[in-house]
Amino acid sequence: MRATLMYGAGDVRVEHVPDAAIVEPTDALVRVVLSCICGSDLWPYGSMPASEHGRRMGHEFLGVVEDVGRDIRSLKRGDLVVAPFVWADNTCDFCRQGLQTSCRHGGLWGGELDGGQGEAVRVPQADGTLVKLPVGEDSSLLPDLLALSDVLCTGHHAAVTAGVNAHTTVTVVGDGAVGLSAVIAARRLGAERIILMGRHDVRTSLGRGFGATDVVTERGAEGIERVRELTGGDGTHTVLECVGTRPAVEMSIGAVRDGGAIGRVGAPQYSEIPMDFGTVMRNITLTGGVAPARAYIEELMPDILDGTIRPGRMFDLAVGLDDIASGYRAMADRDALKVVARP
Amino acid sequence: MRATLMYGAGDVRVEHVPDAAIVEPTDALVRVVLSCICGSDLWPYGSMPASEHGRRMGHEFLGVVEDVGRDIRSLKRGDLVVAPFVWADNTCDFCRQGLQTSCRHGGLWGGELDGGQGEAVRVPQADGTLVKLPVGEDSSLLPDLLALSDVLCTGHHAAVTAGVNAHTTVTVVGDGAVGLSAVIAARRLGAERIILMGRHDVRTSLGRGFGATDVVTERGAEGIERVRELTGGDGTHTVLECVGTRPAVEMSIGAVRDGGAIGRVGAPQYSEIPMDFGTVMRNITLTGGVAPARAYIEELMPDILDGTIRPGRMFDLAVGLDDIASGYRAMADRDALKVVARP
Repeated sequence: MRATLMYGAGDVRVEHVPDAAIVEPTDALVRVVLSCICGSDLWPYGSMPASEHGRRMGHEFLGVVEDVGRDIRSLKRGDLVVAPFVWADNTCDFCRQGLQTSCRHGGLWGGELDGGQGEAVRVPQADGTLVKLPVGEDSSLLPDLLALSDVLCTGHHAAVTAGVNAHTTVTVVGDGAVGLSAVIAARRLGAERIILMGRHDVRTSLGRGFGATDVVTERGAEGIERVRELTGGDGTHTVLECVGTRPAVEMSIGAVRDGGAIGRVGAPQYSEIPMDFGTVMRNITLTGGVAPARAYIEELMPDILDGTIRPGRMFDLAVGLDDIASGYRAMADRDALKVVARP
Repeated sequence: MRATLMYGAGDVRVEHVPDAAIVEPTDALVRVVLSCICGSDLWPYGSMPASEHGRRMGHEFLGVVEDVGRDIRSLKRGDLVVAPFVWADNTCDFCRQGLQTSCRHGGLWGGELDGGQGEAVRVPQADGTLVKLPVGEDSSLLPDLLALSDVLCTGHHAAVTAGVNAHTTVTVVGDGAVGLSAVIAARRLGAERIILMGRHDVRTSLGRGFGATDVVTERGAEGIERVRELTGGDGTHTVLECVGTRPAVEMSIGAVRDGGAIGRVGAPQYSEIPMDFGTVMRNITLTGGVAPARAYIEELMPDILDGTIRPGRMFDLAVGLDDIASGYRAMADRDALKVVARP
């Protein structure tokens, strides 16, 4: 079958790899219908050292179950399913507390496993991992439902962990797909004041459509000052950090109100952050982390099915699998916000 | 009147200063009955550059109201009161949400104000700041009640912000007075497994008396490994960081379970901490901060009055005000855990 491999910065190839197949009795085999490129895929795309052995790519996909292992109970051939970006048994103690990203028998796509950016995927712990979609393969909602795989749940996780509700003001740092998802999530949780920090007109306009009430284009100290101006000098109760760079974290610390919380979901490109004496005096909480998408899919799906939220609007470029390298390039050049790929 | 001033590292003097007096109509004048030395006083005691002008010391005290400004409604002469270590109006929006440390009209003792380690204190925003004590000046409970000023509330804040309850395992990092207070608080909130990290026998023994179920004397990577051994490899749901050094924060990160929270109340002697990719993957929350003692005093006081908790057992040395320098020395040399001073 064909699948996407990354061999180094800027070097993405679609190659023939061994066909995905059932190995364990708890596996399912899924034919990919729709996958996409994640903002986090751009970090290795920008910096991965050249490698002889390519890295299998893609951790967001939905598709049709083609085969199941003998222990599978909840799935059958022909089911349309979405996969969260971390697979998990969904039964261990971590999973039961809603932290499927720390599942005792789970893991990440790629590596020894298939990635989502290919024709098919062997899905481990499939009963726990996969969630059935109550639509057909031809549904116009597929891009929206694909957002459940990662980006929508990641924005939601930032908002939930930071404690967003109808009484909290919110700053979203970053106008990428996760930032825009965080806007959707914050609005959905009842927030009435949502300040989006970003400087790309198309994206911040989309953010306004999703519920952002203010846009701050300034960065750094100026950006912080602008958020404070908009909030009577105080900053917002919550900040959703959706970038992953140190300057983004510093802006988050500067923009959050005393006693407030930063929901951090950007994949960290830093190792140290200044959670110093000042943040202790101000009682700032740093929370969030890699989103346990599996914990949120059933909760968020109905709002997609009834059209309340439309995260699929973020996908602004569709490519065929064979052209996925052009999709990477478009996202890296910021010509595209988020790219879907169809095998 | 006499008051304590610090002129530099190791240089603590008791000197005559202008008598404390009412200045604002919202002030009260309190004659100090009991004050104490804080672990945080040891940071300047260890490192403060020599200064011509001494710094007024002390932020934990209880005493008798001697006079009140004309706007004071809740206090009268003769009331025995305890002061939290940050003064506050207790009416602004931050105070109403229980964050009196960020009061819009509050501040810290010392500086232009009196400190607690003296004969008397002008208390600003006295209606909001002071809490009446329902005992006499001769009560044997005064040391326990003095702990409400800072140390007990600080340990409690670590536990509350980290989410300690009957279902959480707890690691307390540090066997100083705040760490031991955190043990008291965690036990009081229902925690059944409390691992105390410390290496001073007398202190850890006191900690066991307060409710610690395990003591870990190792530090660094060994200390982390020991906590993990005690918890099936997972670490504890909550870690209460009661030291304020970078190694203490690193141990906290290492000892906390995936999805867990670190309640950080040690006064930071660091500016950066490694809340890196790993902590995002593990969904670690860093919370806590300077404790809004005022928010907790009424809640904790009944447990002192009925003898359920006895934080005053931490005071193991009493000195007269004139001998307070010897109290600082004893605490710095770890000959004393926590020192009370009587004017």
